[in-house]
Amino acid sequence: MPDIRSIAQRAKNASRILASLPGSTRENALNKMAGKLLQYKAEVMSANAADIAAAPDLTPAFKKRLQVTEKIFDYMVKRLKEAAALPDPVGNILEGKTMPSGLKVRKISVPIGVIAMIYEARPNVTTDAAAVALKSGNAVILKGGSESLQTNRILANAMREAAVEAGIPADVIQLIDSSDHAVVADLLKQDEYIDLIIPRGGKSLIKAISEGTRIPVLKHYDGICHQYIAPDADVTMATDIVINSKCQRVEVCNALETLLIDAAAAQKILPPLASALLDNGVELRGCRECCKIIKECLPATDEDWDTEYLSATLSIRIVNGIDEAIAHIAAHGSGHTDGIITSSMSMADKFIAEVDSASVLVNASTRLSGGGDYGMGAVVGISTDRLHARGPVGPAELCSYKWVAIGNGQLRD
Amino acid sequence: MPDIRSIAQRAKNASRILASLPGSTRENALNKMAGKLLQYKAEVMSANAADIAAAPDLTPAFKKRLQVTEKIFDYMVKRLKEAAALPDPVGNILEGKTMPSGLKVRKISVPIGVIAMIYEARPNVTTDAAAVALKSGNAVILKGGSESLQTNRILANAMREAAVEAGIPADVIQLIDSSDHAVVADLLKQDEYIDLIIPRGGKSLIKAISEGTRIPVLKHYDGICHQYIAPDADVTMATDIVINSKCQRVEVCNALETLLIDAAAAQKILPPLASALLDNGVELRGCRECCKIIKECLPATDEDWDTEYLSATLSIRIVNGIDEAIAHIAAHGSGHTDGIITSSMSMADKFIAEVDSASVLVNASTRLSGGGDYGMGAVVGISTDRLHARGPVGPAELCSYKWVAIGNGQLRD
Repeated sequence: MPDIRSIAQRAKNASRILASLPGSTRENALNKMAGKLLQYKAEVMSANAADIAAAPDLTPAFKKRLQVTEKIFDYMVKRLKEAAALPDPVGNILEGKTMPSGLKVRKISVPIGVIAMIYEARPNVTTDAAAVALKSGNAVILKGGSESLQTNRILANAMREAAVEAGIPADVIQLIDSSDHAVVADLLKQDEYIDLIIPRGGKSLIKAISEGTRIPVLKHYDGICHQYIAPDADVTMATDIVINSKCQRVEVCNALETLLIDAAAAQKILPPLASALLDNGVELRGCRECCKIIKECLPATDEDWDTEYLSATLSIRIVNGIDEAIAHIAAHGSGHTDGIITSSMSMADKFIAEVDSASVLVNASTRLSGGGDYGMGAVVGISTDRLHARGPVGPAELCSYKWVAIGNGQLRD
Repeated sequence: MPDIRSIAQRAKNASRILASLPGSTRENALNKMAGKLLQYKAEVMSANAADIAAAPDLTPAFKKRLQVTEKIFDYMVKRLKEAAALPDPVGNILEGKTMPSGLKVRKISVPIGVIAMIYEARPNVTTDAAAVALKSGNAVILKGGSESLQTNRILANAMREAAVEAGIPADVIQLIDSSDHAVVADLLKQDEYIDLIIPRGGKSLIKAISEGTRIPVLKHYDGICHQYIAPDADVTMATDIVINSKCQRVEVCNALETLLIDAAAAQKILPPLASALLDNGVELRGCRECCKIIKECLPATDEDWDTEYLSATLSIRIVNGIDEAIAHIAAHGSGHTDGIITSSMSMADKFIAEVDSASVLVNASTRLSGGGDYGMGAVVGISTDRLHARGPVGPAELCSYKWVAIGNGQLRD
């Protein structure tokens, strides 16, 4: 098993050097990382094929996360370049004021330090996390799902090579090259060196990590995302948004899991919408009223409303009015992403004010709640926490700050 | 023992109601709280006298924290009024942009929810914490040191009365009326209802709390604060700043604990400075070089450099150059507040860039690193964490945010 304490210590040392380097060096390194990825493309693809071959009993959703398709590979390269081009989040004056005493007070963004990412077998997270961490001047320790280890090894080595060529210590990016579960327990003990843990994966894993460490944890719980179709929703817009929210990529946290349709709109909207969903291969599970209207709909159980399917299944519930929709989301949602489809500004305002989720959308696909579509570039995930960062976690969210106060002899009275 | 789960549940319900009320209601409640405090002044003072009488073996520092003097009482009232007058931190658009797709993306500040404060026997924290929490739309559960229970009971009841008169549920402010240590263990389990724990007190207590809960913890570790006197420092300014940093209030976290003097300035500055410190009743513990110059100085042990005295004791070390000063602070500081006294901008810039503390000061007293002197009004403390809030924690720091995205049918490609 790798020596985790030594990895964490090296990360801390590398982070101190990284913090002293200018943004242009980090930008340059990110561009070189994109180039290295292209250079090692064949190796990445064959390592990924080997990872997939080594795990033959994968569910379709698991395989879709693990597989580096051409499209995903391009996306990984693009994300690195995008991160390079983003404005530098470090060293910005976030607030500045001169107090009546003459004391000049400034709040300046600084890197957090060392970040440990514990995540699923999803290779694009390896490059996204390294991109976001490096952009924000942090060292990162990567512990991806064991099924993706061969792919991750190539990716991490390529990025480390690029870092060194840009004049940055390789240890700003370290992969834990082990399938041993005990490494996570060891990581949790390194509070002397690690400043933040970002775990992704099952709720029970994240809960266990949060409880077993003194290191702050940024939690990425599940996305039980809703769309509520108000009585006045446009049928075509509602259909397009629901199909996109559910079908564009089913295995991700901001995919739609439960559709709420207002009873006043159900007779009109549900038949064409259900037919479009069925055409897209979605299994429907509905409340009693929904099953009356759509004969292909299976009856939903209580459990369905609390389930993140991450697959081509959708639960549908007919609700009486916006208050019932908001109450359903409060009771069953996970505070990740919830939307309303309406043409009424007052309905939209009420939904925005009363739905307590990281992202609240009006007339847009749930799939848009993410870094790219919010103009943040690469992100390490979507936080369901309320502290530090909520929603997409990009470079600015991986910064801390310090207060600098410059005086000419000011004292406390 | 009080039913902590029920207290937490009531706090969550009250926080939901509070979040729906406008800023003007919270402002009005804070002003009413200041008025109620004045109305109950006699009760507060006699309860405080009873608290002090019940604990006769107090150290001077402990008594100074526990005692509500006239000055501290006035300060408590003033802080409530100041909080009322501060701009509303809730509902602000922190970022706003329209994406190329036409999606309007906004980041809006919202309350965190329910905050549990666990703190020392210091009654002004009771009112400050309630003020900051209420200003930011949060419900607060207060668990102050047992020695202050009688004082806190009067304060909490006065503030609850004022809240109700302003149309806010009393349960936005709840005091845990118990000296039983088991209540803290119970509080840590309420992750369903409590969104943030802010513990203050000994390092071991804070560590135990962080490790024993899934609830995010904002840590207020100790303040081993330094001033470094550079060779070119003005003697009068250096003396005034050091005296104020050390003596203005010795028992608080931003009081000076270790003075670093450059060897090039020691012969000139140390004799008058030491004499001023001795006149102020400060015990000096110095390195060997320091003891050679100042005969009243006791020899410092290794332990002194890592000690937060919280009393009229100061350790003094003569260092060779700014790099040695910065290295000493990195090795022995607590990342709270550290300052330099210099007339050189390049020295100041180097110190600012390389000292990794929540507050870095130039030519100013360490006692200024706080909410009031940074224009933040009342604060619940000074965070030594790097996540969420670093340095003074005021109303803006007790807010989270949500993303709101308004479209007209935008989909993910």
